[in-house]
Amino acid sequence: MNSFIYLVPILGIVGLIVMAFKSAWVSKQDAGDAKMQELAGYIADGAMAFLKAEWKVLGIFVVFASALLAYSGTIHEVNGVAIHSSWIISIAFIIGAVFSATAGYIGMKVATKANVRTTQAARTSLKQALKVSFTGGTVMGLGVAGLAVLGLGGLFIVFLSVFADLGENTVKTAIEVLTGFSLGAESIALFARVGGGIYTKAADVGADLVGKVEAGIPEDDVRNPATIADNVGDNVGDVAGMGADLFGSYVATILATMVLGQEIVVEDKFNGMSPILLPMVICGLGILFSIVGTWFVRIKDEKSSVQNALNLGNWSSIILTVIASFFVVKWMLPETLNLRGVEFSSMDVFFAIVVGSLVGAVMSIVTEYYTAMGKGPVKSIIKQSATGHATNIIGGLAVGMKSTVIPILTLASGIIASYYFAGLYGVAIAAAGMMATTAMQLAIDAFGPIADNAGGIAEMSQLPPEVRERTDNLDAVGNTTAATGKGFAIASAALTSLALFAAFVGIAMPDNQHIDIYKANVLAGLFVGGMIPFIFSALCIQAVGKAAMDMVQEVRRQFREIPGIMEYKAKPEYEKCVAISTKASIREMILPGAIALITPLIVGFTFGPEVLGGLLAGVTVSGVLMGIFQSNAGGAWDNAKKSFEQGVEINGEMFYKKSEPHKASVTGDTVGDPFKDTSGPSMNILIKLMSIVSLVIAPYISGIGSTSADKACCEEHGTKTEKACCENHGAEADSLECTMDDVNGCDMSKCATMSKDECAKMCDDNGCSPEQKEECMAMYDKDGKFIGKGCDMDKCATMTKEECAKMCDDNKCSPEQKAKCMSMYDKDGKYIGHKK
Amino acid sequence: MNSFIYLVPILGIVGLIVMAFKSAWVSKQDAGDAKMQELAGYIADGAMAFLKAEWKVLGIFVVFASALLAYSGTIHEVNGVAIHSSWIISIAFIIGAVFSATAGYIGMKVATKANVRTTQAARTSLKQALKVSFTGGTVMGLGVAGLAVLGLGGLFIVFLSVFADLGENTVKTAIEVLTGFSLGAESIALFARVGGGIYTKAADVGADLVGKVEAGIPEDDVRNPATIADNVGDNVGDVAGMGADLFGSYVATILATMVLGQEIVVEDKFNGMSPILLPMVICGLGILFSIVGTWFVRIKDEKSSVQNALNLGNWSSIILTVIASFFVVKWMLPETLNLRGVEFSSMDVFFAIVVGSLVGAVMSIVTEYYTAMGKGPVKSIIKQSATGHATNIIGGLAVGMKSTVIPILTLASGIIASYYFAGLYGVAIAAAGMMATTAMQLAIDAFGPIADNAGGIAEMSQLPPEVRERTDNLDAVGNTTAATGKGFAIASAALTSLALFAAFVGIAMPDNQHIDIYKANVLAGLFVGGMIPFIFSALCIQAVGKAAMDMVQEVRRQFREIPGIMEYKAKPEYEKCVAISTKASIREMILPGAIALITPLIVGFTFGPEVLGGLLAGVTVSGVLMGIFQSNAGGAWDNAKKSFEQGVEINGEMFYKKSEPHKASVTGDTVGDPFKDTSGPSMNILIKLMSIVSLVIAPYISGIGSTSADKACCEEHGTKTEKACCENHGAEADSLECTMDDVNGCDMSKCATMSKDECAKMCDDNGCSPEQKEECMAMYDKDGKFIGKGCDMDKCATMTKEECAKMCDDNKCSPEQKAKCMSMYDKDGKYIGHKK
Repeated sequence: MNSFIYLVPILGIVGLIVMAFKSAWVSKQDAGDAKMQELAGYIADGAMAFLKAEWKVLGIFVVFASALLAYSGTIHEVNGVAIHSSWIISIAFIIGAVFSATAGYIGMKVATKANVRTTQAARTSLKQALKVSFTGGTVMGLGVAGLAVLGLGGLFIVFLSVFADLGENTVKTAIEVLTGFSLGAESIALFARVGGGIYTKAADVGADLVGKVEAGIPEDDVRNPATIADNVGDNVGDVAGMGADLFGSYVATILATMVLGQEIVVEDKFNGMSPILLPMVICGLGILFSIVGTWFVRIKDEKSSVQNALNLGNWSSIILTVIASFFVVKWMLPETLNLRGVEFSSMDVFFAIVVGSLVGAVMSIVTEYYTAMGKGPVKSIIKQSATGHATNIIGGLAVGMKSTVIPILTLASGIIASYYFAGLYGVAIAAAGMMATTAMQLAIDAFGPIADNAGGIAEMSQLPPEVRERTDNLDAVGNTTAATGKGFAIASAALTSLALFAAFVGIAMPDNQHIDIYKANVLAGLFVGGMIPFIFSALCIQAVGKAAMDMVQEVRRQFREIPGIMEYKAKPEYEKCVAISTKASIREMILPGAIALITPLIVGFTFGPEVLGGLLAGVTVSGVLMGIFQSNAGGAWDNAKKSFEQGVEINGEMFYKKSEPHKASVTGDTVGDPFKDTSGPSMNILIKLMSIVSLVIAPYISGIGSTSADKACCEEHGTKTEKACCENHGAEADSLECTMDDVNGCDMSKCATMSKDECAKMCDDNGCSPEQKEECMAMYDKDGKFIGKGCDMDKCATMTKEECAKMCDDNKCSPEQKAKCMSMYDKDGKYIGHKK
Repeated sequence: MNSFIYLVPILGIVGLIVMAFKSAWVSKQDAGDAKMQELAGYIADGAMAFLKAEWKVLGIFVVFASALLAYSGTIHEVNGVAIHSSWIISIAFIIGAVFSATAGYIGMKVATKANVRTTQAARTSLKQALKVSFTGGTVMGLGVAGLAVLGLGGLFIVFLSVFADLGENTVKTAIEVLTGFSLGAESIALFARVGGGIYTKAADVGADLVGKVEAGIPEDDVRNPATIADNVGDNVGDVAGMGADLFGSYVATILATMVLGQEIVVEDKFNGMSPILLPMVICGLGILFSIVGTWFVRIKDEKSSVQNALNLGNWSSIILTVIASFFVVKWMLPETLNLRGVEFSSMDVFFAIVVGSLVGAVMSIVTEYYTAMGKGPVKSIIKQSATGHATNIIGGLAVGMKSTVIPILTLASGIIASYYFAGLYGVAIAAAGMMATTAMQLAIDAFGPIADNAGGIAEMSQLPPEVRERTDNLDAVGNTTAATGKGFAIASAALTSLALFAAFVGIAMPDNQHIDIYKANVLAGLFVGGMIPFIFSALCIQAVGKAAMDMVQEVRRQFREIPGIMEYKAKPEYEKCVAISTKASIREMILPGAIALITPLIVGFTFGPEVLGGLLAGVTVSGVLMGIFQSNAGGAWDNAKKSFEQGVEINGEMFYKKSEPHKASVTGDTVGDPFKDTSGPSMNILIKLMSIVSLVIAPYISGIGSTSADKACCEEHGTKTEKACCENHGAEADSLECTMDDVNGCDMSKCATMSKDECAKMCDDNGCSPEQKEECMAMYDKDGKFIGKGCDMDKCATMTKEECAKMCDDNKCSPEQKAKCMSMYDKDGKYIGHKK
């Protein structure tokens, strides 16, 4: 094995080492006074309590799922086709799950430290506050990316040596087993995202409804019993949930590229593994350039633009990574590659990476346009708030739906362009290139909730207003980066799903790479798949609604039963609210998670791979649309509401907080909360997880459904059907025959120049099935003379009608075959050939 | 021609005659006092004004579109393939458009007569009020169904005789031209539905926001300047819009079945036309049984259940039609039929009709469950209204999304089952069976808005409360029937679209009936298609929001500037509000309509039929989901609000009108208005219209896109690609060769037993192309000995590596082919065969 391969995990380790240094730096910062530390302590404890409760449930899931996987790994043959798996896939699954949970844990741990330290830093300057909060975000980003690259790279090396004795199947098996790692990571990601999302929004909505609206106290007021739960929510949803989410996405994207890369046969310096190693190397380099990028994220003074600093950091890491990809691609890949018949050069691969980066950039820009303050869409919602709650909602829904147009057109062009350059490998590597700077993306994403929390602590500790102003400045930027991050995530998910989809097709239907939606059952699968994101979203937002109502009841109870809360004389029972959110989120995450995991199993094992392919396509399209719609509607409502804080002009009149239009905008924001932080961002995990589950079961369902039906149909029906059937299961139909042919080297046409004995030997040598051999033998007459295929009607061209009929009888042609032969003669018995 | 065919238009005429009698009966009823007649006059004038404005715009559209169609009809060949069209298609288009507009006009005319007569009847008894309003609905139902059956049947007969001299292409061309009728009908339907939907909801929302909420006057108060516009809206949206909609749907469904039926070759008593005539006959009988059904719609006294009476009428017409279908199918169809390789019996066709009826029934029941008062979903919204506007909205959105599950599973099962019974013809006939009793369905649907209007007139004329109570009773039932009608419509639209989709594939890609979503560009098409319903919905609900705001400003102005309105001393300027709604709806219907019409043209002519197929699948799936989601969410919100009128219990407390939870429920209802009456019901026209446009352009785009690309690819690339390409354009790839083969009778394998000269002759006789002949000749060596196909690597099995290399050189194999041959030998030169 080429020692270059060790570079991959080393790049991961470099990321983790830098992370450790940054984490230590955050810990060293001043954590403020006792009051602040006490509040921060509550938040940290609440977050930890949630994670523990979540892990308990997920632990049970992991045990069952890994047992099932271990069992599946012992199956080495299905319908006579060898399966390249091993029970070790269950180990990979467990490691993936643990790594994913760890990624979330690291992020949450540093966030609950960085929050109070950011508050303290904000007492001195904006510059320092940005530094602390962004470093906190960086720790998370590097942790996620480092663990992912280390895990994938390290396990790949381990598996290559474990399966070294499998010869030519070593790499195939190693990658097959590695899908377990991705499955583990993505399963945990789904639960973490959904659970965290329900938690954070139940607490947020509950705290707002009763605190701001009913009791008239400001957000994050220490008197509100739900305020700690609200701040815990930022950490478990926006930090830990997002960490697990991006960890899963990142791994899935790299893995999808590896699976497709494995199909490419090349001669290179890496034992033919360059297409497999490329995505890992690019993502490893992405970690390095993300570290470089963080150096640019700094501001001079209070008036500097935080957004510009972040943009500079982000773009420099993206551009550096793209430039580096050029050289890496040139150096690693051979001149030309070929995947499933599409030929492309190494430069084409680079262009596909560029396409991926462009798609990501456009998605970010469009998302920003639809959700940013001061832009048309948000302004239209503000205007519609003037006529009440209902028109505000209508306005937001319309903005969300409209915001799907350009992203979808971009995505569609991106798919076509990356495919044009480098086929399916191009689509996959485009996604990988887009995700390469995940460390930086995540640092930018995660700093938002840290700043949000810092503001909460400042408010609760009743610090001077300039502190809150500074954290609000950071929080506002954080809102925009969160929205653009979501646009980015959904784009990468769409491309990754397509790559996983392609990988799935390659494994599940090797002979017949079609997912034909013109077939009734495939279209039915498409319908059912399209429906999944709707029920998934419904369950998520309903869970938030229910949990928020419980929260409201509890807060009302505390206000009623604990005298003195309002006068700061009694402390609210924060932990009860934390417990409500925790319990509700754990309970409610199970059903949506189960739907995502189980649906592909049921459909795959019942209806086979083609219908499952239809299902996946439906989930992907509908999921991407619902994801964009919900995330953008939520973001736009949020910023419409925020706009009222500085005052907005509607038809010449100024409106501020507490005005009627502002109240309408609060309604929109509340509806948007579960849209943008629970169901919307879950969509990208949903579509990827379902694709990964399908990929894992692909070898076991190969041959279920259409193929057997087609075979039966071949045997039953006449020519036209038969031809259609045979094409469907990949055999080359040769006039009337479809049961054998050269599907696996048994091309009976070879026998044309052989004696009967030679032909028999050939059949034996090439491992033809008994049926195939028998058919070969049938091509010789009683005297051992070659007469061609049993019912080769073409031979009749030189026969009279009677001879032809006799030939048919001699060769045991079927009645249909004979009828067809006879139809080639006109009424006078003259041969006229057959019309097609 | 068999004279039986004349039965079809005769059945349509019977429907129209009965309609005329019923219409005369309505006119004869007492129209009440002068005040009532004055108000009814305003409504009728407003409705007429809208129709005129709409027809002006649509007239321009029809002129342009028919010119384009006439031109297209003059093209008789594209890429060497004959097209069976004629300029007469433009006449069919114009007739379809005029019939569709007439259907809407008849409905509106009778509705604006029946409304005030129902008010007058309600002064005496509920029984009489039901009789008048339901008879009004019946006129509309019979008008729509009668015109459709007359139009389709009559034109088909005319076209058969016009194209009689085309021989075997007569029927094909007649049906091809008939698609123009459906295109005309469905285009007008889309504009009428969208325009009418925007009108009615803009007026409704505007009137409510400023009347009920701001001025505190009841609904339909004569002092509200927007009240006439609101009542006009019921007629132009819920009556005329729906009439045109169902006319279009009905025609499209029958036509789709005819197109597929035309492909079925049978021997029967109807010159082989039984599968074409069947849907028309069943739908014609459906008219008769709908008339029978109306006899059952009667109640005894004030306490009788109106819903039960309607159900009895509906079910008796459905059951009678299904029973009649059994005999019709038995009598008309031959024992066995075969469509695209699927064989089925006449009984299978009947079973498919039963499946269609069952799907329709389940859809209606599920829709009722999700939207009816007192059931779980509506109750959950009521409960969530207790915590405010936002939770009410969240609740309604969740209900709408959840309500997609069972309908989609039903639809998917229905597709699979009807396909299982009778292939694609089964899917189409299932939809036709479901739509057969459209006359009855529409009567039930249309009586609702008539009763609604009657209530409005009662309120405006300040009649005694028991009158309003009686009309409210009818209106409430009307709301439920409207919701179930929508469930029914979307189900039939889904099945019809699939049938149209199949018809499209048959015409656009006759040689290669695949829509493979595994291809990058088809998947891109699927994404773009999925997005269309989102932008379409966004435009619709946004238009309502904007127009409603204009309405609010105008009403506010009138209250401000016209003194004495509130004291009944001055009359509001009703016509100004009518003008606002009219103008806004006409203006705003154009863009969504254009998107639906133009997108398939752009995609089809740019990317070809397969990508267009992906687009259609995306539109269908996403459109069905968005349609169900929006219609049901809107219906549930509406009834949650209505529940407050009788009082609801939330957590042990009773809430009534004007309570805080009621206000929250009004917000939900207002958001739901455009959902359930503008964008939701437009979805089924959208998906059908796009399918019909695709069907009309199908012959012209056949061959664009994939095929030529595949051909190029065949010439450029190596084995694997070549094989894939060739399969794609339907040739049977024979190992390495794909440029010829037996695509048109030039099977070179025949030559194996011929001398070179015989083979040359065979090529000439069978009309092989020069290239094909050349390739055949290449199978003989210099001495005229047959050596098989140029580069048949299989022959190497009995050669040494050197011999094989020489063979490759001698036969001018391509470098790739030679490389492949060489790869079949191991390092030691031993033949090891090739791996697949």
